[in-house]
Amino acid sequence: MDKDLIAQYRYFLKDSIRKEIDFSQTDQNRDIDIPPIEKPCRADAMRIDLVKPDSWKTIGRIDLVTAIMNRKSRRAYTKEPLTLEEISFLLWTTQGVRADVMDGHAYRVVPSAGCRHAFETYLVVLNGKGLDQGIYRYLPLSHQLLFEFSEEHLARKIVNAVFRQPCPGNASVTFIWAAIPYRMEWRYHLAAHKVIAIDIGHVCQNLYLACEAIGAGTCAIAAYDQEALDQLLRIDGKDEFVVYLSPVGKVRNLT
Amino acid sequence: MDKDLIAQYRYFLKDSIRKEIDFSQTDQNRDIDIPPIEKPCRADAMRIDLVKPDSWKTIGRIDLVTAIMNRKSRRAYTKEPLTLEEISFLLWTTQGVRADVMDGHAYRVVPSAGCRHAFETYLVVLNGKGLDQGIYRYLPLSHQLLFEFSEEHLARKIVNAVFRQPCPGNASVTFIWAAIPYRMEWRYHLAAHKVIAIDIGHVCQNLYLACEAIGAGTCAIAAYDQEALDQLLRIDGKDEFVVYLSPVGKVRNLT
Repeated sequence: MDKDLIAQYRYFLKDSIRKEIDFSQTDQNRDIDIPPIEKPCRADAMRIDLVKPDSWKTIGRIDLVTAIMNRKSRRAYTKEPLTLEEISFLLWTTQGVRADVMDGHAYRVVPSAGCRHAFETYLVVLNGKGLDQGIYRYLPLSHQLLFEFSEEHLARKIVNAVFRQPCPGNASVTFIWAAIPYRMEWRYHLAAHKVIAIDIGHVCQNLYLACEAIGAGTCAIAAYDQEALDQLLRIDGKDEFVVYLSPVGKVRNLT
Repeated sequence: MDKDLIAQYRYFLKDSIRKEIDFSQTDQNRDIDIPPIEKPCRADAMRIDLVKPDSWKTIGRIDLVTAIMNRKSRRAYTKEPLTLEEISFLLWTTQGVRADVMDGHAYRVVPSAGCRHAFETYLVVLNGKGLDQGIYRYLPLSHQLLFEFSEEHLARKIVNAVFRQPCPGNASVTFIWAAIPYRMEWRYHLAAHKVIAIDIGHVCQNLYLACEAIGAGTCAIAAYDQEALDQLLRIDGKDEFVVYLSPVGKVRNLT
């Protein structure tokens, strides 16, 4: 292996960069406006109200230790659709806002470096109860689902965009997380990118565990065609791009 | 901000690199031996048997949704020590091996790209019931705790190594995760490093949730003095280096 290249990539995982950054010159410390918590959407966009935590009626109670013990990567799904309540639950447990917004910060159910939460959650819906097929986006501030657009041959296109791994084509929905890195760079400059990657791990672990409560399964995917997937979501691939994804479906046997 | 540097760092978060890698030339595909699952230790090293999941007696049962809802960063700890059973529980829920080892792979309670699990878990113990102060390491294959060494002024040294953030000095124990990146590079070459960062997020999210079950709290730390912390753990900073840490202590009020 090329030792210099390997060393350069390993460097990314270290925090040595922090000592090289002049934090007085970050955008935050130069009093540049804090970036928005959530990507804006058109005023006339179609928004679907999601079921709020205090109204969940069908979400199973599962002991934390049982959920951790049972969790595994699940790649085979039944044809049963996820319900809107189940989708609401999964979106909330991965990116829900758990406290009032203050000073441009919104605490969420997962931790994020400096409370910067640099992600947008896109949902490819192939088989959701009462939902048209298409690409949606979670709006955490209002706990709503935004309908982005419909797309022909969506199942085939998403499978192609993950080098023909079949799970997203058989899933009820696929979570696709895109980063808007400036949200983190505003505060941390070059120390932003490592923690964005760590943060999406926090998020996805909650998705794995939450699936165990509703008889569903997931299997995170890190191997994907970056340009194809960004294009599928119609995001620019520069200021916003996909970082991780995870298809979800009901499973026959949770053991 | 320097646009070229920012673009270079953003690139790390993308999966574009995958299309540039000749996977026929990875160490795995050149039939180079699979790296060990666990860093070896001397035969005469002091090992402490940890409490196994089927023998846990004091671990609280908490509903998954409650754990997710209550989780937050907790930075103030009481002086109560964690017990060996509680430490066993936290080590197991973050890095425990949940199935028999096969073909050099060990499935764990958390997901990892290609089941490569590139981490060693070091534990700085300042106040553990029945444990001497010092630096320990988790041995997941045997579910044991290895005593690495004792260190004078340990509390002061770890606080200094995180730029004087006080929590690790007041914690009962601090989890420090080091990566051995070759475990992942063996299979993924330059596509290894992003997924190592994601994987440690999976691990740490379980630590946050597991703390909620035992009246403890944690607050992950990504800002640390890389060289000082590697030196404190006596690891080489090249083939093994710290990537993330999280102090844990009992908390007075879990709400």
